[in-house]
Amino acid sequence: MNGLIGHAVKTIGDENMAKKDMTGHFGDRLIEAIAERRCAICVGLDPTIEMMPADFLHEAIAEMGRTPAAVGRAFARFCHDVIDAVKDVVPAVKPQMAFFEEFGSPGIDAFTETVRYAHTQGLIVIEDAKRNDIGSTAAAYARGHLGRLRVGSKSCMSFDVDAITVNPYLGSDGIKPFIQLCRLRGKGIFVLAKTSNPSSSEFQDVFVGVRKGVRLTLADLVAIHIEKWGKPLVGRTGFSSVGAVVGATFPTDAGRLRKIMPQAIFLVPGFGAQGASAADVVPCFDDHGCGALVNSSRAIIYAWRNRSGGSDKYCDGERFRTAVRNAAISARDSINSALKRAGRFG
Amino acid sequence: MNGLIGHAVKTIGDENMAKKDMTGHFGDRLIEAIAERRCAICVGLDPTIEMMPADFLHEAIAEMGRTPAAVGRAFARFCHDVIDAVKDVVPAVKPQMAFFEEFGSPGIDAFTETVRYAHTQGLIVIEDAKRNDIGSTAAAYARGHLGRLRVGSKSCMSFDVDAITVNPYLGSDGIKPFIQLCRLRGKGIFVLAKTSNPSSSEFQDVFVGVRKGVRLTLADLVAIHIEKWGKPLVGRTGFSSVGAVVGATFPTDAGRLRKIMPQAIFLVPGFGAQGASAADVVPCFDDHGCGALVNSSRAIIYAWRNRSGGSDKYCDGERFRTAVRNAAISARDSINSALKRAGRFG
Repeated sequence: MNGLIGHAVKTIGDENMAKKDMTGHFGDRLIEAIAERRCAICVGLDPTIEMMPADFLHEAIAEMGRTPAAVGRAFARFCHDVIDAVKDVVPAVKPQMAFFEEFGSPGIDAFTETVRYAHTQGLIVIEDAKRNDIGSTAAAYARGHLGRLRVGSKSCMSFDVDAITVNPYLGSDGIKPFIQLCRLRGKGIFVLAKTSNPSSSEFQDVFVGVRKGVRLTLADLVAIHIEKWGKPLVGRTGFSSVGAVVGATFPTDAGRLRKIMPQAIFLVPGFGAQGASAADVVPCFDDHGCGALVNSSRAIIYAWRNRSGGSDKYCDGERFRTAVRNAAISARDSINSALKRAGRFG
Repeated sequence: MNGLIGHAVKTIGDENMAKKDMTGHFGDRLIEAIAERRCAICVGLDPTIEMMPADFLHEAIAEMGRTPAAVGRAFARFCHDVIDAVKDVVPAVKPQMAFFEEFGSPGIDAFTETVRYAHTQGLIVIEDAKRNDIGSTAAAYARGHLGRLRVGSKSCMSFDVDAITVNPYLGSDGIKPFIQLCRLRGKGIFVLAKTSNPSSSEFQDVFVGVRKGVRLTLADLVAIHIEKWGKPLVGRTGFSSVGAVVGATFPTDAGRLRKIMPQAIFLVPGFGAQGASAADVVPCFDDHGCGALVNSSRAIIYAWRNRSGGSDKYCDGERFRTAVRNAAISARDSINSALKRAGRFG
């Protein structure tokens, strides 16, 4: 990753500036970054060899052979270029751990490089890893992703993302170790409530009881817990560092969940490639057009594939970054327009 | 990890023998390995610096400084020694990914080494990672942990564990990519149904409906799905490669879940350090004393700490391995005795 490390060294000034922004309350930082850029789009970093311009892998293979290390290098450079293309448009990126982890330790190194580079460019990093476990095991996940590590008397950085997605199936025991680090280190979590996929109905939509005369789904019950877990972590913006994942593909559920969790920031998958429109996303926001961050992965990072006239495998760097940047701007504008049409644009 | 690699080279004969055993149907392989050793204990590999004899870390720090790489080396050697101590007693080990992942790519390298070494010693490896996601992301997790990787025209090994734990909250979309690799590569999964922790009641115990006049909990509903997902993967032993995680700490639930999932192998946490007794574990087995694998982590791998008269930080290798081995034997015997007392010992 010489290219990245070199770049990081050259931008030490930026890094210090960015570092200042990276402390404090996660919920406030995210809400303010969204407001500052007038952009509620988060760019999902889902690197796959099949979908990125072929040059990234070919160049890495020329250096390192057909190895997982070459894939790691291609991933790091791809994410680096995506970050460069969107860094002044969006407030946050969301690397998807699965795609990095697939290639073992070189993939993990690429993930670490990506997080560091995004931070030097002033972006908030939300890791999509959907981790979950209990007790000392959950504490190890929390330390590894949000905390600091201890090796003998020395302390060093973990992945050190700003926030991570977590799965609620194990109940509070699996959430509290993460919340402790949200409090101690200004970090955040997004707990899965209602996911964007078709089979989310199998468990998340089952009725589990009645509250104030209304039938509750499992997702509603999880949402009640999320709001409760987040209450001690509400910042000056009125939003908590404990957020929720709520899919854009089920707008009626999203509207109901918004009422149950007025203080949770919604991380919203399902927009774009998964089929939800900008109008579908509106119920995830509050009446002032606040409190949601809409993720788009493939529609932005693989926008270069939609260009007519281009090769279906190759794309030069400038054209690649322009396509990514334009797709991010277009996503931002379509969300902002939908919020305006709904009378929710602050 | 020279020590481990050296060992692996020396045992190529064993490795080939072991490899033969590692193909075929996961459920059958596990049931047969349990029967062959008359041992239903799985040793959980949860390496932590604080709990292992101090020499492991000191020696690694002497070589590599106070770095995450030193922790990785200490973890790999610790797991190597535990495997040597239990390899002719138990059928399987369960490395807990959280503890390795905490230390970034050196931790992941230690995990990979541990899996490889366990395989050369003929042990089945069940990765505890509780992964979950949807679509192409779940497919990436499945490939990375159970499948093979492609780098250009070349194919290489992933973590290549025999089975992995997965979380069901996202429904079938999150399970099917794993099941596909169970079918194609003789792998297995254990889906969380009822976990062993106190707060598992918050969501897993809520009532979600009625079936045949009996109220169903969410864990029961998940169990109905697990049995359905596993049906096409039932082997000649009558058990499926799609198993379930069912905690030993709630024996009444375990008995009910056993009836709902007659073909699922239960991976049973909660025995030992978490408080469940051998008698509590019995309802996880079928009437012939089959179909469950009881995990014990801390009570076995940290058994050296219970020795009276020993130092509380140091322990020589021979004494360490003897304590681990005796604890595994004692766990095995207590489960077998409880099954005999209950009239379930085949």
